[in-house]
Amino acid sequence: MNSIKVFCPASVANVSCGFDVLGFCLDGIGDEMKITKTANKGLIISKITGAELPLDPNKNVATIAASAILKNFNLDYGFDFEIKKNIKPGSGIGSSAASAVGAVYGINKLIGEPFEKKELIKFALEGEKYASKAEHADNIAPALLGGFSLVRCNKTFDIIKLPYPEKLYTTILHPEIELKTSHARSILKKAIPLNDVVRQSGNLAALISALYTKNYDLISKSLKDYIIEPYRSKLIPEFDLLKKTALNSGALGSGISGSGPSIFALSKGKEIAENVGQEMKKIVSKLPIKHNVYVSKINQKGVKII
Amino acid sequence: MNSIKVFCPASVANVSCGFDVLGFCLDGIGDEMKITKTANKGLIISKITGAELPLDPNKNVATIAASAILKNFNLDYGFDFEIKKNIKPGSGIGSSAASAVGAVYGINKLIGEPFEKKELIKFALEGEKYASKAEHADNIAPALLGGFSLVRCNKTFDIIKLPYPEKLYTTILHPEIELKTSHARSILKKAIPLNDVVRQSGNLAALISALYTKNYDLISKSLKDYIIEPYRSKLIPEFDLLKKTALNSGALGSGISGSGPSIFALSKGKEIAENVGQEMKKIVSKLPIKHNVYVSKINQKGVKII
Repeated sequence: MNSIKVFCPASVANVSCGFDVLGFCLDGIGDEMKITKTANKGLIISKITGAELPLDPNKNVATIAASAILKNFNLDYGFDFEIKKNIKPGSGIGSSAASAVGAVYGINKLIGEPFEKKELIKFALEGEKYASKAEHADNIAPALLGGFSLVRCNKTFDIIKLPYPEKLYTTILHPEIELKTSHARSILKKAIPLNDVVRQSGNLAALISALYTKNYDLISKSLKDYIIEPYRSKLIPEFDLLKKTALNSGALGSGISGSGPSIFALSKGKEIAENVGQEMKKIVSKLPIKHNVYVSKINQKGVKII
Repeated sequence: MNSIKVFCPASVANVSCGFDVLGFCLDGIGDEMKITKTANKGLIISKITGAELPLDPNKNVATIAASAILKNFNLDYGFDFEIKKNIKPGSGIGSSAASAVGAVYGINKLIGEPFEKKELIKFALEGEKYASKAEHADNIAPALLGGFSLVRCNKTFDIIKLPYPEKLYTTILHPEIELKTSHARSILKKAIPLNDVVRQSGNLAALISALYTKNYDLISKSLKDYIIEPYRSKLIPEFDLLKKTALNSGALGSGISGSGPSIFALSKGKEIAENVGQEMKKIVSKLPIKHNVYVSKINQKGVKII
C-alpha cells in the first residue's frame, strides 16, 4: 500500500460530569487526510484546505503525531500529507485530536500495522500535547476507537470502551468565537469543594451505569457538571439559554463540548436531535456570531479508511 | 404479624474511589433485631446486648429511624425493640446503618408493607443522620438493598443497584480503636486539587465499568483513593503495612471501610480472602490492639427476615 485516505472524526470530550476522562465520537463530522509514501525520507505536508494551519511538519499536530510513531523505525522512505480540515480548529470538538488520530492510524496502516489500534493512543497524544499543552486522551481515545471512551488513567493510557444505547444522537452547536483551550483551562478552579466532588462523582458513576444499562432516563439525570461548567459557560455567549433551549426541546442533557465554545446535546433519536439543533439555531441566529449546527449519531467505529 | 426478627447486615462504604457514593453489603456479619407490637402506643427498647447503646428511644438510631416511618401513620399500638448488636459501634462497617435499616424494614413489614424497599431509605437516613451528623446513604443503601449500591444523589435518594462478579469476597480487619466519624470527617481537605479529582473520577468510572463487565483485573486497578485515604489512613495504626500485606496476599484492592478504623480488602474467591485475613492478622497481632477479622461474600439480598 503506497497511499491511504482516512476519515478523522470529530469528538466530544468531558461530557458534563466526565471532565478529562470521558469522550464520545461523532459520525459525519470529520477531516479527511491522504497520506502517500514518498521516495525521500521525512515528512511533508503538501496541502491543507479548510483551515489556516502550519505546513511546517514540526508545527503541525498531524506530522508531530506521525513522527512519534515513526521514530520507532528506521525507514528508507517518507510520507506526504494532504489534509482537508472540516473540523474548525478551536471549535471544541477535537480538531487537533482528529488530525493526530488520522495521522497515526494512516501511518500505522502504511507501514504494515506494527501496532494495535489502542497502542496508537500514546503517539496521537504527542500531537495533542503540542496543540493543547495538556496531555489528555479524552478526544484522542474516542476519535481512534469510536463510541464512548473512558480514560481511566492519562499516564498509562488505560482506556475503556463503553457501550451506549443505540438511539443516542448528538447535536453540536459551534458558535464561531475564539476560545483558546489554554485560557478555558486557566479559568478553572484549582481545587474543588469536597461536596461538589461527591455530587459530580455520583453523577459520573451513574452515567457509566446508565450507558451499560441503556437507561435514557438515568443518562438524562446524570448529565450534570458542578465543577467545570459554572466557570467555562461564562465564556460562551447565551450558554444558559442555549442549554435550557436544548433541554426544553427534548434533549437528555446538554453541556460544553471539550473546552468549548461548542455546545453539545445528547438526545434519544435523530428527530429530537434535529429539533434541538433547530431550536438552538433560532437563539444563536439572533447573535452577531457565525455558527454551525451538526446532528450526528454516535460513531461506533472511530477513524477509518475511506 | 405481631413480631418480626430481622438480620441487619454490616456494610462497607466509600470503597476506595467512591467516597460518599459507593457501598456494598456484607453477609454473615450483622445485628439481629426483634420488633414486637405492643398494646401501648410509642416505642420501647427493652433490651440491647453486645454493645453499650442508649435504651432511650429518642437517642437510639433504630427507634429514631422507626419514628421517621411511623410519623406517617396514626397507629393505636406501639413497638418493642430487642437488639443484639454484633457490629461494634464505631467500627466503620455501618453499625448505625444496620440498626436504622433493620428498624425501618421490620416496622414496614409489621404495618403491612405500605412502602417499597427503596422508599425506606429516607426513613433509615433519619437514624443515620442522628448517629453520624451527616446525611449519607452509602451504608444505608447497601444494607437495605444488598450488593453494591451507588448513591447518585444524597438529596433525592436516587440509588442504583450495581451488579458485581460472583466470586467477589471481602475481608474486614477491625482494629478496636476509637475513631469518631465526625473526627474522621473533620480531618479531610475541604477542597480537592483538580488533578486528583480527575484521577479519582477515572478510577471510579472504571470501577463501575469493571463491576458491569465482571472484570477482576480492572476492579483491582481502579481501587485507588487519592482524596480521602492519604489523610484518614494516618488515624489507623500500621494502615500502610496492612494494606500492602493485603495486596501481597492476593487481594484485588484494599482501603478504609467507611470512615474507619476498619480496613477492607476485596478478593477473587473465599480462599484468597481468608488468606488475606490471616496475613493481616499476623501484622495486627503484634500491636497492643484488640481486633476482629471477618471474611464475607458480598450479600446480594441485604436486610432480611430470620
